[in-house]
Amino acid sequence: MLPTSSVLLTDLYQLAMLQGYFEEGMEETAVFEFFVRKRPPERNFFIAAGLEQLLVYLERLQFTSPELEWLAGTGRFSKELIDYLSRFRFTGDVDAMPEGTVFFPNEPIVRVTAPLPQAQLVETRLINLLHFQILIASKAARSVLAAPGALLIDFGLRRAHGAEAGLLAARACYLAGFAGSSTVLAESIYGIPAYGTMAHSFIQAHEEEAEAFIRFARAQPNNVVLLLDTYDTEAAAMKVVSISLQLKQEGIAIRGVRLDSGDLADHAKKVRRILDAGGLPEVKIWASGNLDEHVVRGLLSAGAPIDGFGIGSRLDTSADVPYLDCAYKLQEYAGRARRKRSEGKATWPGRKQVYRRTGPDGRIAEDLLALESEPQEGEALLQPVMRAGRRLARAPLLTEARKQVAAELARLPESLRRLEEAASYPVKISEELARLAAEVDARNR
Amino acid sequence: MLPTSSVLLTDLYQLAMLQGYFEEGMEETAVFEFFVRKRPPERNFFIAAGLEQLLVYLERLQFTSPELEWLAGTGRFSKELIDYLSRFRFTGDVDAMPEGTVFFPNEPIVRVTAPLPQAQLVETRLINLLHFQILIASKAARSVLAAPGALLIDFGLRRAHGAEAGLLAARACYLAGFAGSSTVLAESIYGIPAYGTMAHSFIQAHEEEAEAFIRFARAQPNNVVLLLDTYDTEAAAMKVVSISLQLKQEGIAIRGVRLDSGDLADHAKKVRRILDAGGLPEVKIWASGNLDEHVVRGLLSAGAPIDGFGIGSRLDTSADVPYLDCAYKLQEYAGRARRKRSEGKATWPGRKQVYRRTGPDGRIAEDLLALESEPQEGEALLQPVMRAGRRLARAPLLTEARKQVAAELARLPESLRRLEEAASYPVKISEELARLAAEVDARNR
Repeated sequence: MLPTSSVLLTDLYQLAMLQGYFEEGMEETAVFEFFVRKRPPERNFFIAAGLEQLLVYLERLQFTSPELEWLAGTGRFSKELIDYLSRFRFTGDVDAMPEGTVFFPNEPIVRVTAPLPQAQLVETRLINLLHFQILIASKAARSVLAAPGALLIDFGLRRAHGAEAGLLAARACYLAGFAGSSTVLAESIYGIPAYGTMAHSFIQAHEEEAEAFIRFARAQPNNVVLLLDTYDTEAAAMKVVSISLQLKQEGIAIRGVRLDSGDLADHAKKVRRILDAGGLPEVKIWASGNLDEHVVRGLLSAGAPIDGFGIGSRLDTSADVPYLDCAYKLQEYAGRARRKRSEGKATWPGRKQVYRRTGPDGRIAEDLLALESEPQEGEALLQPVMRAGRRLARAPLLTEARKQVAAELARLPESLRRLEEAASYPVKISEELARLAAEVDARNR
Repeated sequence: MLPTSSVLLTDLYQLAMLQGYFEEGMEETAVFEFFVRKRPPERNFFIAAGLEQLLVYLERLQFTSPELEWLAGTGRFSKELIDYLSRFRFTGDVDAMPEGTVFFPNEPIVRVTAPLPQAQLVETRLINLLHFQILIASKAARSVLAAPGALLIDFGLRRAHGAEAGLLAARACYLAGFAGSSTVLAESIYGIPAYGTMAHSFIQAHEEEAEAFIRFARAQPNNVVLLLDTYDTEAAAMKVVSISLQLKQEGIAIRGVRLDSGDLADHAKKVRRILDAGGLPEVKIWASGNLDEHVVRGLLSAGAPIDGFGIGSRLDTSADVPYLDCAYKLQEYAGRARRKRSEGKATWPGRKQVYRRTGPDGRIAEDLLALESEPQEGEALLQPVMRAGRRLARAPLLTEARKQVAAELARLPESLRRLEEAASYPVKISEELARLAAEVDARNR
């Protein structure tokens, strides 16, 4: 429906600046870095995500004939620029933290090294792709930490902000450790396990709730999860018990029930008792309905016997932190370091690397932001992923990146694993980098 | 890049229920209605939006061969169902409030009347499309009310949640009364005027700020808006004055300057004085940088001489209210009214119409929610837009819907036009409707 891969998915000023760079012949190498400026109190760390979609975008980047004609027709650009754009491709280098890496403010996640017009033009979509998946993966990881061992499913497509948000949220949640998503397309495109139960409308469309349960079970005998709260949750649980024998005789096992409203802890306890007393201890209880990591933790610490959580709107919109203060900034042009000094938005100049050091307990202890040209001890987090517009390796499997996240979460200090705001993780600045920043400032004074 | 029009952009449970409906031959007419349940304190009203995208989706809805093969391969569905899905089209009716209509909680915006499996399957994408544009249009209208006469531009693509969110946010903002968007694709697809200035990187890539200004002006002589805050805002304003004569001699007029950080009111006043003293009273001042309707109103009431506002992240993510409590619920099946009774989520049954009554001052005064079968006085807000899967009329022009919003905002009572929480607008329930609800409850007891 919408051309989400169009190069016109950008801000007008990128094209206006391209006209300027073109006229001036400014095609020397630029280095831009993408980073998150600040950590909101609701997040103790971030998770790198979205690199895969970015690399696909860069590899395919080009202006189609209809796009060029349309641009020419706007009268904003010279014939010569349109000509130049017809040959435009991304031929630069990308260094990046692998998807699934834990990171902190001011650390570059992605560095683009390319002729200035190329590195400039890609800014808008680069931020658009990285920001959203980082946002959701970082939010989803909190539920993973809050509910170890529980089955977590992304239920958010309907209230995600559009189609791409729904799909990429499913991907980011799975990356962060969720078991799957209700979004069918996420399974068909990304291989993310699809999960689903039934809706209230299915119950309502039948004259009797028990009849609806039986019909649904027969239609989906391998995935019988029945929704209990359409009329009266506990009454529905008793109906589940009463139909279970008949279904068993037909060879159909009820796998679970879902609670979607009311006091979920109270309902879960009552429903658990009803199911257990009815000889159905193996039937799992799912909960859904405006959940987030705080509600999930509250339910579990209240002893609610809930096995799985369907988490939707608050997760797919990252409702407590719906956007991050992130930026993609020019750090070097034509071999010279650059720095923006705008109030409250100053950046660290030059090509940088992030080094991570681990403590004696195996937990991460400190990061160092240094110039690429001054190697340091520790694990270098930015790795080469694209050279001269070509990927260096095939895309890593999403399942591998997912394992990476699990390993990264295990290496987090306890304070960062909590939902409450922790003291900032130390990100130090190398002496060389501090010296370069002072030097660049002096130059632009 | 992503198949945003795919019928697989749905929740797995929709397909699971389709298997059930298919096996039971449940294809009688269902009536579903989409509505917003609750009004958050940060919104006094909502604006209907997204209908156009919904109708396009319904008209084109079908399973492609690769999708059918993939579904068959999952093993979740019978061969007979796959066969049935291969012929699946949307053949139903849609009644809806025109885009741009102001509405309130519990009022149906869109009513779908179709064979049950069709009305069911479309739920997820229907909510996904309507919810997001309503969310953004309702947020954007607040800036329009807060800054009458100012030039408002959507700057949010980069931090919108994915590509579709960026595009549809541009559309929803324009619908609500914004002058345009920075998103180029929004102009090429929807004809929404694209606006743009320049980025910090353009300044940084040049050795001298003044040189960067001159080069940019020559490259974009019809749209010279210069960014002042890369190093020092007031110093940059003085450079603008100093280069203006030279540019004037080249026939280039500076149209505006943009402030993007620091105390915007203070900078705007100082910059205005510098520009005026320098003989540039016609140069407009734009502001950007983490704005929303509250900041905009604050700046204007502080007397900041700002002519235009670029509003981005907080608008395109609706940051204060990142999702709405909305639903698409079965209200009637096979000629019988239905009602969900879940705690805190009960719905009004039956096919409904919304009647709006205007007071003697010409402002809207009261709405009445009634059954379609009991005509009432007042303006009926739901109109037929699709019959038997075909649109009844061509899509209205976006510019027309935009005029509708302006007219609707003018008809709002003063209390609802304010940013502060107002007393709820009265939405009454007809006696017939209340009677039907009681009757349906009694039946399911």
